[in-house]
Amino acid sequence: MTSSPTFTDIQQAAKRIEPYAHRTPVFTCSSLNEMLGADLFFKCENFQKVGAFKFRGACNAVFSLSDAEARRGVATHSSGNHGAALALAARLRGIEARIVMPTNAPAIKQAAVAGYGGTIVFCDPTQAAREATLANVVQETGATFIHPYNNLHVIAGQGTAALELCEDVLELDVVMVPIGGGGLTSGTAITIAGRSPSTRLIAAEPAAADDAYRSLQTGQMQPSLNPQTIADGLRTSLGELTFAIIQRHVEQIVTVSEVAIADAMRHVWERMKMIVEPSAAVPVGALLEQRIDLSGQRIGVILSGGNVDLNQLPWLSTSHD
Amino acid sequence: MTSSPTFTDIQQAAKRIEPYAHRTPVFTCSSLNEMLGADLFFKCENFQKVGAFKFRGACNAVFSLSDAEARRGVATHSSGNHGAALALAARLRGIEARIVMPTNAPAIKQAAVAGYGGTIVFCDPTQAAREATLANVVQETGATFIHPYNNLHVIAGQGTAALELCEDVLELDVVMVPIGGGGLTSGTAITIAGRSPSTRLIAAEPAAADDAYRSLQTGQMQPSLNPQTIADGLRTSLGELTFAIIQRHVEQIVTVSEVAIADAMRHVWERMKMIVEPSAAVPVGALLEQRIDLSGQRIGVILSGGNVDLNQLPWLSTSHD
Repeated sequence: MTSSPTFTDIQQAAKRIEPYAHRTPVFTCSSLNEMLGADLFFKCENFQKVGAFKFRGACNAVFSLSDAEARRGVATHSSGNHGAALALAARLRGIEARIVMPTNAPAIKQAAVAGYGGTIVFCDPTQAAREATLANVVQETGATFIHPYNNLHVIAGQGTAALELCEDVLELDVVMVPIGGGGLTSGTAITIAGRSPSTRLIAAEPAAADDAYRSLQTGQMQPSLNPQTIADGLRTSLGELTFAIIQRHVEQIVTVSEVAIADAMRHVWERMKMIVEPSAAVPVGALLEQRIDLSGQRIGVILSGGNVDLNQLPWLSTSHD
Repeated sequence: MTSSPTFTDIQQAAKRIEPYAHRTPVFTCSSLNEMLGADLFFKCENFQKVGAFKFRGACNAVFSLSDAEARRGVATHSSGNHGAALALAARLRGIEARIVMPTNAPAIKQAAVAGYGGTIVFCDPTQAAREATLANVVQETGATFIHPYNNLHVIAGQGTAALELCEDVLELDVVMVPIGGGGLTSGTAITIAGRSPSTRLIAAEPAAADDAYRSLQTGQMQPSLNPQTIADGLRTSLGELTFAIIQRHVEQIVTVSEVAIADAMRHVWERMKMIVEPSAAVPVGALLEQRIDLSGQRIGVILSGGNVDLNQLPWLSTSHD
């Protein structure tokens, strides 16, 4: 691989993960179609293993390792969906996953990683401690570091969701994805360029964590500093690999308010009877806020995940106001 | 029709409602399978139109009317899923639905009926007022009363969920349903007898609203008086038609504690990323409580609906303790 996966890499990733990942369904919602005057097709990655598309990338990375590499295990420093996904992918290959987590990571996230068989390595809750601890783990064990998004195998794996969507729903005018670190957006971009080049890709980002928007505007990476958004999966900033791919392929990034994210999340729960996490609701929020005119169009939306602390729902607190 | 729909009636109902109802998907859950040592197949009626299997029965009843009957509309006195389902079915046929509701019905239920185009007729919040108001509506308008479950067309419509389940999943050892008024149980019983007679039917009922259990035990209808359960769809008692069918066909009724219902509901939300209402969680609660030994078996579970007030979740209050 060079600095970007090719469409062939994504097709190979799809074959590689096929025995392990769900082919998730595509749902429609007549009330949303009526409200927006468009035909929406929701790719339900909330039903993916570990409850998020992240399993695709982690699985592709783990099963791309040579046997010699695999014996030394894998490591990462994500306490979110990628950490859980890497733990499960490693368990399925029968190898060890070491997940570096700050000591103050929520109990629910620790339990998820442990439940999938990952080994938690605690560190102080600072960026420096996280990186130092991960470097130590890699040095001591020889584990392969699998970055949550700035990794070619991960990007290729994430692109398989859009590949299935394009196979199941023909002639999409637009595909919408949420953007955080850019792994899903990058993979989706390459899939669309290879499979359905007339389809437009629009990424949706919380206005409160708009580093991708600003980076695309200025042509330079503009990391978000401690962003405050309920879309916890999208607080990360672009990586070098993802930024380069996004600069080349993504037509538009729209930003979405916190209120619209919470409203969209609740709308999906109430009308579609599905649990989506705030990050997954961001593209839906962009549609509800009518940040873009998509009337009459066929729109694919990747619902990225469904991992939510059911004790902490945005409409039951004032945290997003 | 005589006092029970036949399997042919259910097959005809399936054809009748096919243009209007969703063929809902069947989901599996590897964590529940592992936990219980069984193969579970969930028929997702929470994804049905109006968010509940009730649309099947209402739709079959409405589209079974003659044109002359249809012109005078339909009426009922359910403020729950049946009221919403009847409103939508009537709108799809282009006729009026009058839904009698007590003045103290929750705003969310009023909004659902109104949103589907039903005409709400308010009454005082007593059983006597409800029946008198309905009788008035029927007399004044000539509308056909569509009972929520004690109606042969409704029972036949409800049986179509199990028909699809048996078509999609072969060789089920058991099918489990929640039981309230008995419409779903009766329809499912007839479907199974006609389509898959070696499959056992087990109904699950809140212990706090166990009229069906007691009625089956004693051989006489034993209505529940003001039962207190979070499974709001199951507070009703059997009707004469449903009781007779259930006596003939149902092998076993198991009762489920309120704590198990809430736990099961949360489990489905967290692991399957689907919204199910408390009533739908009752069979899952029976499995989690291991009220019956079903290890090694292939078990179909009809998840009856997904209509929940998202501001009132059982794990965020003490209402079910």
